[in-house]
Amino acid sequence: MNKPLTVVFPLYPGVTQLDFTGPWQVLMHLPGARLIAASLGGESIVSEGLNFASLQPLESLTECDVLCVPGGGGCTDAMKNPDFISHIQRLADNATYVTSVCTGSLILAAAGILRGKRAACHWMYLDTLAWFGAIPVSERVVRDGNIFSGGGVTAGIDFALTLVAELAGEERAQRIQLGLEYAPAPPFNAGHPDVAPAALVAQQLASTAALRERRRQIIQEISLQ
Amino acid sequence: MNKPLTVVFPLYPGVTQLDFTGPWQVLMHLPGARLIAASLGGESIVSEGLNFASLQPLESLTECDVLCVPGGGGCTDAMKNPDFISHIQRLADNATYVTSVCTGSLILAAAGILRGKRAACHWMYLDTLAWFGAIPVSERVVRDGNIFSGGGVTAGIDFALTLVAELAGEERAQRIQLGLEYAPAPPFNAGHPDVAPAALVAQQLASTAALRERRRQIIQEISLQ
Repeated sequence: MNKPLTVVFPLYPGVTQLDFTGPWQVLMHLPGARLIAASLGGESIVSEGLNFASLQPLESLTECDVLCVPGGGGCTDAMKNPDFISHIQRLADNATYVTSVCTGSLILAAAGILRGKRAACHWMYLDTLAWFGAIPVSERVVRDGNIFSGGGVTAGIDFALTLVAELAGEERAQRIQLGLEYAPAPPFNAGHPDVAPAALVAQQLASTAALRERRRQIIQEISLQ
Repeated sequence: MNKPLTVVFPLYPGVTQLDFTGPWQVLMHLPGARLIAASLGGESIVSEGLNFASLQPLESLTECDVLCVPGGGGCTDAMKNPDFISHIQRLADNATYVTSVCTGSLILAAAGILRGKRAACHWMYLDTLAWFGAIPVSERVVRDGNIFSGGGVTAGIDFALTLVAELAGEERAQRIQLGLEYAPAPPFNAGHPDVAPAALVAQQLASTAALRERRRQIIQEISLQ
């Protein structure tokens, strides 16, 4: 890792902050890495009460080595925004690695980047990747060539460690893991429908039904355009 | 959870952002919770390249239900800042739960809050808690009465789920875990000295030796004041 490596996180209103703050914490320890949080016009992004300021205008970025698109409830608006999508396409075109966390893969899909590609997504929306011609894969971190994608929210940490291993070797990734004391010990085993109690999954699906259906409908409309 | 529950995160220069963005992402789903990121004078905090703006002045906060102090390389400066420490003491005095992530426990210790109390910390500095009369415990999440502390950085997510279970029940914590897809699958098993390859731990200790020793000396000086 002799030359600087630029990692761009394109943020947008309604982004889920842990989708990018998790990978950011990992990738900032990558030797030679330069991390950039960007948004349309460099506007500040308020995500769930946290105000991220001093962002770089997406318009000012000519290229990057790694493009990392986070997910969030605002992903559908981002998918429908031609300005935002055009910057994703432009930066992805010249990036060495095109990556996403959570529903960030839907943004890549809407930008036409995932056709025929295997990708991860938040479990609630994983299947909708197929509407864009992508191949949904229910795994924590998915790689298809130079495209890396992580599953829902917290998968961004596992994704970022996987990317560090690719870029700088396994030993570097392990040292970062040790520094961040990433030996997770969730107090419960409920982090995915495959392992959570069935009643809990049913309850979660029921309580989010209206929101999910509305979002899925919007995603479908975007996929048909 | 009928009445609003106020959670205050006191930020300071040199805070590690994942120490609070992780718990923030969990606790924001706690029904009725109001999360507040604060700093001395409400000054923006730049943490590892991310600029957190629109912070509440610590001076303006009269009380909170949960105080959550994150860690970071700047913790020693925070420990030496009498203004900052006095706000920690004042808010802790009336909080129902006093909590920390990573080296945030050293700040609680410097504020005199952990005497005789069991607490967690980042593995590199865990033993230094004893210099303040606290009882260091090498666990991911430690509880002593109304004091909850998490280990290094990423332990903040496990800590926050544990706190949600205390405040709103296990089912709520599990639903948040499911929503954040927190079924961690680290690509390596190197997140703690107990499990990482011995050579890796030795290398990490060697490469951080000068920094660690300097920090430990500062922590010791503070503990003797």
